[in-house]
Amino acid sequence: RHLQNLFTAERDWNKFHQPRNLLLALVGEVGELAELFQWKGEVSEGLPDWTPSQKESLRHEMSDVLIYLLELAEKCHVDLPHAVLAKMELNAKKYPVERVQGSAKKYTEYSEETQASSGGTPQGTG
Amino acid sequence: RHLQNLFTAERDWNKFHQPRNLLLALVGEVGELAELFQWKGEVSEGLPDWTPSQKESLRHEMSDVLIYLLELAEKCHVDLPHAVLAKMELNAKKYPVERVQGSAKKYTEYSEETQASSGGTPQGTG
Amino acid sequence: RHLQNLFTAERDWNKFHQPRNLLLALVGEVGELAELFQWKGEVSEGLPDWTPSQKESLRHEMSDVLIYLLELAEKCHVDLPHAVLAKMELNAKKYPVERVQGSAKKYTEYSEETQASSGGTPQGTG
Amino acid sequence: RHLQNLFTAERDWNKFHQPRNLLLALVGEVGELAELFQWKGEVSEGLPDWTPSQKESLRHEMSDVLIYLLELAEKCHVDLPHAVLAKMELNAKKYPVERVQGSAKKYTEYSEETQASSGGTPQGTG
Repeated sequence: RHLQNLFTAERDWNKFHQPRNLLLALVGEVGELAELFQWKGEVSEGLPDWTPSQKESLRHEMSDVLIYLLELAEKCHVDLPHAVLAKMELNAKKYPVERVQGSAKKYTEYSEETQASSGGTPQGTG
Repeated sequence: RHLQNLFTAERDWNKFHQPRNLLLALVGEVGELAELFQWKGEVSEGLPDWTPSQKESLRHEMSDVLIYLLELAEKCHVDLPHAVLAKMELNAKKYPVERVQGSAKKYTEYSEETQASSGGTPQGTG
Repeated sequence: RHLQNLFTAERDWNKFHQPRNLLLALVGEVGELAELFQWKGEVSEGLPDWTPSQKESLRHEMSDVLIYLLELAEKCHVDLPHAVLAKMELNAKKYPVERVQGSAKKYTEYSEETQASSGGTPQGTG
Repeated sequence: RHLQNLFTAERDWNKFHQPRNLLLALVGEVGELAELFQWKGEVSEGLPDWTPSQKESLRHEMSDVLIYLLELAEKCHVDLPHAVLAKMELNAKKYPVERVQGSAKKYTEYSEETQASSGGTPQGTG
């Protein structure tokens, strides 16, 4: 974080880094990330069929998403590392192992319930 | 990361966590994040006008974005912390202080150039 | 639609146009649309401060979003014009004029309720 | 469009419908659309495995995306139907049948070129 703050400050770019500007920049980067996957059909773990240059693009786009997410957190005064730990604890309670473990069927049904009641995402991080 | 891996493994959810599934989940969470900002007009640093409950939602949605981003990185075998540092170094070269520092005008023009040539985002993280 | 179908068929691109491919392409285009707005702060109706070239980019990106949305609808066998009319009728019932008309405060509160109960978006189209 | 304008006007919601508000609402709806596809793996044309209730959700979310896109176009003074036709004509020139027709390989390579030079999307609508 310190490096990125320095980067922004040195360039006098703080004035552009209002929360909604950063949010739209984040959306833009997620779009670029999506473009890397868009014509590929299903993709296997580890991306065995991607070229080195495609993998490099992926590293860049994922980095951009993270950089903007961290900047947005900072401008919103969100302590993101702390928030993530708290959210993971919450998820562990919301999706207890004994209840959701096992079949895809159970998983999917559970998702449905969740979506019906809260518009959220299944999997515990929604 | 270790906690989240354990969380997913305990629930036997790895089979759902293919790269494109995780990417779409990430897009879903970014959408939920955007919804928190959508009717607010411009938003000030630190979110002085947000209620505690809105701020809590923000912490949750930002956490979800980060959790899925980290899971996606893992399934794609991307070392994200390392990638981010490399990208920041690249940005520092691409946007040298002496060239871009200063006025909004310069910043915007610089952005335009960047967009024209690469569809990228200004600010050095594009 | 007919023109676009012809366009895709002539180029033998139907094989790439699976639903999730098109969805990710849509996300990519929404990202490009967001990039046009990302460093601008609040933007006024009619975009009085945008250059002709920026307005042209906007027309292109909005068109791309629409083209992919229509293609996705087709591959999913969704009759989108019909679906939109049905959704608008539903919204008119869900947000009756006498209840929501008026102040921003009322609007915002209404949104909160909606978000709390369904994760949905306010404004009647959520 | 006329129906939707009336809907918004009757509810006195125009004041919320600034361009960036609508854009973020659009992003939110695209996120909800993505959530419908997120745990499904590859999905076949026509969605043979989806339940009627999932298909209904899909119709709703696609409608919401379109409604916000049309509202955004209006606030930006973009004549979207005209813009789409112009864009499709442009695409037809950019991706001539004789050049891109045929193999996936050709298609993919063409995409790569496009991405390298403009960050755009392959397929002619990028």
